[in-house]
Amino acid sequence: MPNALERLKQKTTDLRALEAAMGLLNWDQQCYMPKGGAKARALHLSVLSRMHHEQFTSTEMGDLLAQAAEEAEPGSTDEAMVRVVKRDYDLATKLPSELVMEQARLAAEGHEVWVEARANNDFPRFAPILRRVFDLSKRVAECLGYQDHIYDALLDLYEEGATRADCLAMYEALKAETVPLVHAIASRPQNDDSFLYGEWDVERQREFTLKLVRAIGFDLERGRQDVAAHPFCTGWSVGDVRITTRFGSYLPSAIFGSLHEAGHGLYEQNSPEEWDQTPLAGGVSMALHESQSRTWENLVGRSRAFWVRFLPELQQAFPAFAGVDLDRFYRGVNRVQPSLIRVEADEVTYNLHTLVRFEIECDVLTDRLSVDDIPEAWNARYEQYLGIRPPNDAQGCLQDVHWSGGMVGYFPTYTMGNILSFQFWELLTRDLGDPYERIARGEFAPILGWLREKIYSQGRRYTPKELVRRVTGGGMDPRPYVEGLKRKYSEVYGL
Amino acid sequence: MPNALERLKQKTTDLRALEAAMGLLNWDQQCYMPKGGAKARALHLSVLSRMHHEQFTSTEMGDLLAQAAEEAEPGSTDEAMVRVVKRDYDLATKLPSELVMEQARLAAEGHEVWVEARANNDFPRFAPILRRVFDLSKRVAECLGYQDHIYDALLDLYEEGATRADCLAMYEALKAETVPLVHAIASRPQNDDSFLYGEWDVERQREFTLKLVRAIGFDLERGRQDVAAHPFCTGWSVGDVRITTRFGSYLPSAIFGSLHEAGHGLYEQNSPEEWDQTPLAGGVSMALHESQSRTWENLVGRSRAFWVRFLPELQQAFPAFAGVDLDRFYRGVNRVQPSLIRVEADEVTYNLHTLVRFEIECDVLTDRLSVDDIPEAWNARYEQYLGIRPPNDAQGCLQDVHWSGGMVGYFPTYTMGNILSFQFWELLTRDLGDPYERIARGEFAPILGWLREKIYSQGRRYTPKELVRRVTGGGMDPRPYVEGLKRKYSEVYGL
Repeated sequence: MPNALERLKQKTTDLRALEAAMGLLNWDQQCYMPKGGAKARALHLSVLSRMHHEQFTSTEMGDLLAQAAEEAEPGSTDEAMVRVVKRDYDLATKLPSELVMEQARLAAEGHEVWVEARANNDFPRFAPILRRVFDLSKRVAECLGYQDHIYDALLDLYEEGATRADCLAMYEALKAETVPLVHAIASRPQNDDSFLYGEWDVERQREFTLKLVRAIGFDLERGRQDVAAHPFCTGWSVGDVRITTRFGSYLPSAIFGSLHEAGHGLYEQNSPEEWDQTPLAGGVSMALHESQSRTWENLVGRSRAFWVRFLPELQQAFPAFAGVDLDRFYRGVNRVQPSLIRVEADEVTYNLHTLVRFEIECDVLTDRLSVDDIPEAWNARYEQYLGIRPPNDAQGCLQDVHWSGGMVGYFPTYTMGNILSFQFWELLTRDLGDPYERIARGEFAPILGWLREKIYSQGRRYTPKELVRRVTGGGMDPRPYVEGLKRKYSEVYGL
Repeated sequence: MPNALERLKQKTTDLRALEAAMGLLNWDQQCYMPKGGAKARALHLSVLSRMHHEQFTSTEMGDLLAQAAEEAEPGSTDEAMVRVVKRDYDLATKLPSELVMEQARLAAEGHEVWVEARANNDFPRFAPILRRVFDLSKRVAECLGYQDHIYDALLDLYEEGATRADCLAMYEALKAETVPLVHAIASRPQNDDSFLYGEWDVERQREFTLKLVRAIGFDLERGRQDVAAHPFCTGWSVGDVRITTRFGSYLPSAIFGSLHEAGHGLYEQNSPEEWDQTPLAGGVSMALHESQSRTWENLVGRSRAFWVRFLPELQQAFPAFAGVDLDRFYRGVNRVQPSLIRVEADEVTYNLHTLVRFEIECDVLTDRLSVDDIPEAWNARYEQYLGIRPPNDAQGCLQDVHWSGGMVGYFPTYTMGNILSFQFWELLTRDLGDPYERIARGEFAPILGWLREKIYSQGRRYTPKELVRRVTGGGMDPRPYVEGLKRKYSEVYGL
């Protein structure tokens, strides 16, 4: 009989096959599935996820994990593999299965209600669901356990080891620096970006975005780009990573959306080949993943150097840009303006959106705010942080999909990603010299190589905090981010 | 505890979810998967098929089936459901699992070797695989058991209840009638079909074929058409049926390929909604399925009436056809000519191709022919039946994918489908009056309605033979087919 480690690997390969199947079922649902397929698709996904849960939480798995932990050499990748599976196993087994099923049911039901409530701007319709979501989140947090704050248990689901205290420190630093920056920008004449709107040919958008993602290193022999209403990145192998984008009348939506998802895709495509189909493959956490999508979208894609290289090609693909010079284009795609919708927010104001959500989640979880009072709390905070007040809840607290799916505790990971992207970039610059000279020449390989070596090749071997420590020598630090934004936007807006 | 019938239904729903996942993994592999995804895809498919086999052949399933058989009311659909699952269960459990694994391994290995051997016209390279395929087929047949002839056990895998004796009678009748017909046609001036070749715009081919499949009733809200190198039809729900086609320089390949697959698709889309995700859903056998693809491809699509309706639209989509009148077009797409490749064969000569394969399979299985002598036996029969001799094995005995995948006993079901399509059509004509008047007006609903009522709505409730008996009052009968071909081609070729 093979030893426990070998049997554990065999088991996790089986689970990986179920995850891959669910991944493809989801991808297809968002990219190609005809309307009539929805009912059966929901059934198939629920059956497969039940099979996965049953196989993963079996006592056999628990025994294997315990034995494998003894067999694994200290410091080996086997030990890391056991740790990763153990963490997921603990999370899966700490929750009673009736709670897991209740979550799944509520997410399915909640999504439907949310879509309707948002379309009709009808918060009271959604409120009963949202109450159940927060109640369930509290029960989940109690099952999982925490030391300091109930929020820690939920945040840990998405970002292992991160705490509410981390978030408070992070947002404190950001608020102090970015709110004045936003005000300073608001006092300046606004950048023109009207030239970015038009009737852009879809085929040309497809070709141009494919050219960009290929240029930065996304391998189309080991991945695809398709169209989806809500762009995402998924995958089930280092050799098969799928990104999606959308093509509309605001051209940056396709361009920066594609670069963003390709950033996620590069992380997955550069996971070590030898770890493929093992628990060590792929990105380590939401924040680390987001740091990479943000790096390629913002630090690379929204840089002046990037458009030194690509504006001529853009002008060739879309002759409407013939009269737009580099400076005007650069300032157009870096327009900063407080707005109501998170997913459309610019680099500077983005974190204020996640801050609003983080504060409200904390208050509801600790009964300092009732669900019924969320709309007012939301609107008041938008006024306070962004200086604008949502005219209705559809553009306010009903805008995000997360809560309807039961995802409470997720939002701060977006901001952590923003911060980490600048921290890594500072180190990359120190190691490689000014990366923007290379970007202007279209040389992305050294940048990708640095990120691969430091981050992508590490897979899930270390915890997110440990990985950040290994790369930076310390913890998450908002300074490079805040300084970077101030430097960039002082120039863009002539502050 | 729910009764055994309920638990059996629950189990089969679970299995259906695994089948659906494998179906989508296969579809994606042929339509969208990037090259780099192949290795992981093979792994995922093998894991899922093992899970399926383990769950299906468990002793729990055997017990459930025995109890459910006692609970089911005689004559009820529950009884039919138990019969269908029992048949599949018996087939799955009669084979030792080492044999199943050996089959899977050989199919994977065999496919690779076959691709290479065909590309290099190298039969000796493929011969060792083919020997193992036939040896394994013999062992499988012995495990499954048979009464009269070893071929019966293998054919039954694809066409429940069909026997070699059925095939002999069928081919005897066909040979007697179609070989003289082919000779008579050969003595006449050949139809011109040069106008069907060209550089056809892919987007227009896509639009035109979508128009055709939609016109005959394929529902694109409950299905899709995509592109694949080897067109096929698949699906996992009455609401999600996927057909594929290909676009090249010979326009009929896209047109009739699309109609062919849409015929399969109509069968699946018109399976009863209430049986969706149960073992009674979908087509009952290979021959019945093929009868429907052939009906829509040939009896409908290659009729003069069909082009009364659609030639004007074809001319609009492809101006090159402006000078081609109905008669010339009709005779062009009904050109008969003995050729070497089965999948490109016309309606009249098609069955001679499957006959060659059937005879060779029988001879090898009974040791009257050795695998090494297949090429010579193949070429001799092509000369005898079709009057032409393959110049090499790539265009001869290496052309089909079936044997490399272990599918011995499959080919006669194609010809059964041809025969059944004409039998059904004769009855449809008796019930509805001349369908071609309707077709010329683009009215396909009555035809689809008749086929739905008689065949599609029956799902797998009856065995294929019982279904044919219920529709026709008797068994498979080549007469309508032979007479129909003679009538049609006497006119087309002025015999």
